[in-house]
Amino acid sequence: MNEQHSWVASANGHADFPLQNLPLGIFSPPGGRPRAGVAIGDSILDLEALLATGLLQGDAATAALACEGGRLNGFFALGRQPRLALRERLSVLLSEGNDSRAVVRDCLHLASECEMALPASIGDYTDFYVGIEHAKNVGKLFRPDNPLLPNYKYVPIGYHGRASTVRPSGTPVRRPKGQTPPKEQGGGPGFGPCARLDFELELGIWIGRGNAMGESIPLDRAEEHVAGYCLLNDWSARDIQAWEYQPLGPFLSKSFITSLSPWVVTAEALEPFRCAQAPRPEGDPQPLPYLWNAADQAEGALDIQLEVLLQTAHMREQGLAAERISLSNTRSMYWTVAQLVAHHSVNGCQLQPGDLFGSGTLSGAAPGQFGSLLEITEGGKQPLLLASGESRRFLEDGDEVILRARCVAPGQVSIGFGECRGRIVAAS
Amino acid sequence: MNEQHSWVASANGHADFPLQNLPLGIFSPPGGRPRAGVAIGDSILDLEALLATGLLQGDAATAALACEGGRLNGFFALGRQPRLALRERLSVLLSEGNDSRAVVRDCLHLASECEMALPASIGDYTDFYVGIEHAKNVGKLFRPDNPLLPNYKYVPIGYHGRASTVRPSGTPVRRPKGQTPPKEQGGGPGFGPCARLDFELELGIWIGRGNAMGESIPLDRAEEHVAGYCLLNDWSARDIQAWEYQPLGPFLSKSFITSLSPWVVTAEALEPFRCAQAPRPEGDPQPLPYLWNAADQAEGALDIQLEVLLQTAHMREQGLAAERISLSNTRSMYWTVAQLVAHHSVNGCQLQPGDLFGSGTLSGAAPGQFGSLLEITEGGKQPLLLASGESRRFLEDGDEVILRARCVAPGQVSIGFGECRGRIVAAS
Repeated sequence: MNEQHSWVASANGHADFPLQNLPLGIFSPPGGRPRAGVAIGDSILDLEALLATGLLQGDAATAALACEGGRLNGFFALGRQPRLALRERLSVLLSEGNDSRAVVRDCLHLASECEMALPASIGDYTDFYVGIEHAKNVGKLFRPDNPLLPNYKYVPIGYHGRASTVRPSGTPVRRPKGQTPPKEQGGGPGFGPCARLDFELELGIWIGRGNAMGESIPLDRAEEHVAGYCLLNDWSARDIQAWEYQPLGPFLSKSFITSLSPWVVTAEALEPFRCAQAPRPEGDPQPLPYLWNAADQAEGALDIQLEVLLQTAHMREQGLAAERISLSNTRSMYWTVAQLVAHHSVNGCQLQPGDLFGSGTLSGAAPGQFGSLLEITEGGKQPLLLASGESRRFLEDGDEVILRARCVAPGQVSIGFGECRGRIVAAS
Repeated sequence: MNEQHSWVASANGHADFPLQNLPLGIFSPPGGRPRAGVAIGDSILDLEALLATGLLQGDAATAALACEGGRLNGFFALGRQPRLALRERLSVLLSEGNDSRAVVRDCLHLASECEMALPASIGDYTDFYVGIEHAKNVGKLFRPDNPLLPNYKYVPIGYHGRASTVRPSGTPVRRPKGQTPPKEQGGGPGFGPCARLDFELELGIWIGRGNAMGESIPLDRAEEHVAGYCLLNDWSARDIQAWEYQPLGPFLSKSFITSLSPWVVTAEALEPFRCAQAPRPEGDPQPLPYLWNAADQAEGALDIQLEVLLQTAHMREQGLAAERISLSNTRSMYWTVAQLVAHHSVNGCQLQPGDLFGSGTLSGAAPGQFGSLLEITEGGKQPLLLASGESRRFLEDGDEVILRARCVAPGQVSIGFGECRGRIVAAS
């Protein structure tokens, strides 16, 4: 076990950012322009400033240099080796007793005083649907006897999302307007502010190295194309979605905003939290060969605890803390991240550094583990009762949704992702 | 009528690029880097070189300067006024008898010696489905009695496409591989090269000025956000599509490549070819207020003749010209381009300069006017017989599909779009 402590005191025992995490992001210090940094405890290490000290050499310096320009796309494009070199060097520099700590300390900013931006310019954003319990829960609302469609256990279902409205945690979520379903069969739609506004708890995946158009990425090379992970809230307007989505899928019901936690937790930091893919239930089909190999089954899944908290305007006014309304896990993914990459590129589709995947909503099978209000309230039929005495069928103006993630494994220092927050503001 | 001739002799009577068109694009002259140019007859006017001559001033110079950097995004962002100023100045400089023609002539390249690139970096690509005859033809294959879904006449149906694989005319189209529908009910899918490869004839729309996230673009301002138009081939793998598309829409069946004609025909060049929106058939609903105003109905539609040609490998070997297999028109759009812009942003979705819309397949109601083989061959059941003695149900390796467009109106010089070509190469 790597129990190494840091001379950055706040890092030791930090819920999200101990020395063992070292996620990258883009931050602006007070009055400064956006730049790349690494989260360590309650501080952010400025990579440009660190590079200027001369304490980075070789691949680590190459990696830090590629982080310049206020976005991490160039860093993502480098692939694993330089990323790992930077990680190892930062780990040494930030470790307890390191001789250069006086110099490195001058490169730190207090995170609470900085503003976070998106870590990269997103070329394309793809949202998958691989949380099988969510697919079952939603399918049951429409087809109680046969919730999963015939393709579900063969195809990692996904669709293209809107890249232009992906925003970092903290960006207000304006309630969208749109067409809503007719009140009566055969009638015309309504129009107005969404009345069934929802969140969706997802894992975000940052693509690293890309592929040329026309070339597929084989499953056993797929991990080399993943740079890191974040939390993703796929805000959803259920009424708009129900009316618009046939036959080509969700569109305006999702494209008003998608929120991300701003730190890129690297594939290397998550290594200790990899696990075997859950065995497919008896009767489930064997995946096609391009989606299956033994190594991916043995260690291609991730064990990340996920939680959703809700704080209403009333709770804030009363000084009440946010209430946890869901506790889930990435183990509910029916396909591994490597399988998503292999599937996405099997037709020759080009992936590029800074492309973003969403996993799809990650719900568990039981109440208390659902990743959307659609599931928690059974489509709005069963209100969610809150400790504050309030209840919710869908989100109201002033509600704030907070996503968190935590990685725990025996003999390992736990790490987290930081928060993905968004507060609902009234329609304009 | 503006019958003005140009001193560029090839422009006079040119099918696509007379003086009245002046579309913009990004080209590379032999051995040179990509740069912005304007098509005039069989030549391309180098805008950077022209700017350097000092012949552009004021808004026209501002517009030309914004074209620098090998992409037109900055130019698109400027909006209509500078674009119009540049157009008017170029029209003067290229007109017969202009005193500066010796200087301008030095800025010309022969188009046949240049390579075309995409005109802009595409942030997001949205594909609509507003060709109502196509929607009916495709719907009939699944629901003979009720081809259009209940939302069709209320919602300009659209979905997000893949931006990373949009390519300029001439880029080879590699046959994609993927999962194909089970041979028997309840069976597992097949896997291999697509066996039902198709084209889709569409109008492409380039977004100019964008909007802030959270702000809607009202219908009466929507035209200000459109920079220009092109042809778009939404290549489609019908077997992959049939298996994957439920419930979230087409994905890998479309994302392997999308081809564009490389010239941006400006909104100003198309002004003479605007027309009234076809009256809605008796019984069709009135659009919701955000999608309706009298001016848009009166002159918001476009009258552009569209054609599809096919040349097989055998035809090339025999020296046979490409055969026209469809003749259609943009008047089959159920919604105007302004309505698409207003709808896309009604939820606050941010549009950005260089975003691309596809209209959806534009078919007429009658045989000979269909914009895809799916329709021409009734889903592969009725082979298309070619004059070469060959037949096609879907596209074969070596087939080349060519899209063309032509604008004709009484008393107007006709203009065209240039070609959108793509030749199928075997799966890898």
